[in-house]
Amino acid sequence: MVDGAQYARWSRKVFEEMRAGGVDAVHATVAYHENFRETVDLIAAWNRRLAEHGDLIAKARSVEEIEAARATGRTAILFGVQNPSPIEADLGLVEVLADLGIRFLQLTYNNQSLLGAGWQEYEDGGVTRMGREVIAEMNRCGIAIDMSHAGERTAVEAIERSARPVTVSHANPRWWRDTARNVSDRVIDALAAHDGLLGLSLYPHHLAGGPDCTLEDFCAMAARLAERIGPQRIGIGSDLCQDQPDSVVAWMRDGRWTFQTAANPNGPPVFPPQPGWFRSNADFPGIRAGLVTAGFSATEADGIMGNNWIDFMRRAFVRG
Amino acid sequence: MVDGAQYARWSRKVFEEMRAGGVDAVHATVAYHENFRETVDLIAAWNRRLAEHGDLIAKARSVEEIEAARATGRTAILFGVQNPSPIEADLGLVEVLADLGIRFLQLTYNNQSLLGAGWQEYEDGGVTRMGREVIAEMNRCGIAIDMSHAGERTAVEAIERSARPVTVSHANPRWWRDTARNVSDRVIDALAAHDGLLGLSLYPHHLAGGPDCTLEDFCAMAARLAERIGPQRIGIGSDLCQDQPDSVVAWMRDGRWTFQTAANPNGPPVFPPQPGWFRSNADFPGIRAGLVTAGFSATEADGIMGNNWIDFMRRAFVRG
Repeated sequence: MVDGAQYARWSRKVFEEMRAGGVDAVHATVAYHENFRETVDLIAAWNRRLAEHGDLIAKARSVEEIEAARATGRTAILFGVQNPSPIEADLGLVEVLADLGIRFLQLTYNNQSLLGAGWQEYEDGGVTRMGREVIAEMNRCGIAIDMSHAGERTAVEAIERSARPVTVSHANPRWWRDTARNVSDRVIDALAAHDGLLGLSLYPHHLAGGPDCTLEDFCAMAARLAERIGPQRIGIGSDLCQDQPDSVVAWMRDGRWTFQTAANPNGPPVFPPQPGWFRSNADFPGIRAGLVTAGFSATEADGIMGNNWIDFMRRAFVRG
Repeated sequence: MVDGAQYARWSRKVFEEMRAGGVDAVHATVAYHENFRETVDLIAAWNRRLAEHGDLIAKARSVEEIEAARATGRTAILFGVQNPSPIEADLGLVEVLADLGIRFLQLTYNNQSLLGAGWQEYEDGGVTRMGREVIAEMNRCGIAIDMSHAGERTAVEAIERSARPVTVSHANPRWWRDTARNVSDRVIDALAAHDGLLGLSLYPHHLAGGPDCTLEDFCAMAARLAERIGPQRIGIGSDLCQDQPDSVVAWMRDGRWTFQTAANPNGPPVFPPQPGWFRSNADFPGIRAGLVTAGFSATEADGIMGNNWIDFMRRAFVRG
């Protein structure tokens, strides 16, 4: 079992739930809007956390390290960042971040970045001059390009330009829940055509019906999607933000680029409640069961629950 | 006499030439691609330089301080940055930069920034979400918005969104020398309609005929431009890069966003030679004479050579 996107308030309890849910690897978000130096601090904090809970979790930079963690009964933690802010305007920081263990990096997060446009931006002009350079450098350094939170044009251009497969690690098809945060058929088809992977999200704002979405509806969506692109291009990227305080939503949305939230008359944003069938890492086995009930074979369900991510990482984490 | 854009290799010789040319104020570029912390270093270096050459130059943050420098026979130095990189992704740094004396800031420099698109970018999607916030904050903090090096759409949107007048501090009309680095009639008309100011550039790549451009041709261009927007919307922004080594051109163009220049088979870029009639700050009086020869009245020529900048600054540097 591999989860392609998670940003919990990390704790021993969460790591124990990972073990209880049989989770072999988690792509953990290290940074959102932090600059390089701040991201180094967050990586150092992760290194201390990994040491403190070394009986439950282990840092992984490759499929081999995921397998080693599994062999010792631990959950592998893969580092990722959801915004290219840690690269700042410095192409040389891509390799530095790779050396520090970053294995996933989003070219954009909601807004315009130096590399491309996010889904909430006024206009999406696609991959920029620096964006083309960063894509090539990420390919060279073995960092997976993640286009969650991107604008449609930027996502498609990145998928087409990258020499290695690209992921949208946490989003659902737009036809299922119509929000520009989810992915259009154009993005889905581009991902599939370039052997990428779509991690299905369990974040309520991405689910049809929100917190009331049923497991059956979620798995039926996966089955319909598999008819279009095949089950092997699908994974799970839960976007689980377990135990995070609501102040984290404001940080995710507003970073430091606006002063607006503080002045928002509706009050600060809050996390929506999770659906009852997915409240923690311990609930993953139920999703596998739901996939089988929806008609996936055991092999297909195992692929969606983890093996497809492993296959993707083997092709995306190649260095040189 | 006011020069609206200059990035010399600062030295006592350059400051003495400013005095020889009767230059009362210079908008000096402090940073190109530097982040906030690096920009602070460059400001600190300027503070030391101002102390060392305090008999020739004085720091100015307002028209009053320009007048005080003039009254004591010194050239006022106004700080500016050509790229919003010192703001990073932090809206709060706008006021911090204002407090440190920054009075001009370009929203873009050639490429896509977090705020808008530069003239060399593949696409120009206009002013971004963060860009709108920064424009309002620059208006509040009294930093002049400078759209030199911007894409056309981004320039026009910034001019129209800003509550205070905007400048293109160093560029010429595109109809005179056809490069996207110069400004289209659309940008010129928007500037004029919003009481902004166009600083005419003396950088060879912006001149018709390049280094061979004559003073007569330059002044005839100014006269034709004045017919369209009036002489009071025109100033000088020489873009003088005196005594800079060619390595500075590579830094301006490439910053740290690409590794390409090093691999360029044509070798690194070089500074073009200046036209014979403008080689240093000491040559400004000749330009005023050329403007009068081209038909401008003494008052109009004095406006273009400095008074129009003073008028612009009075309206742009307002805080609160």
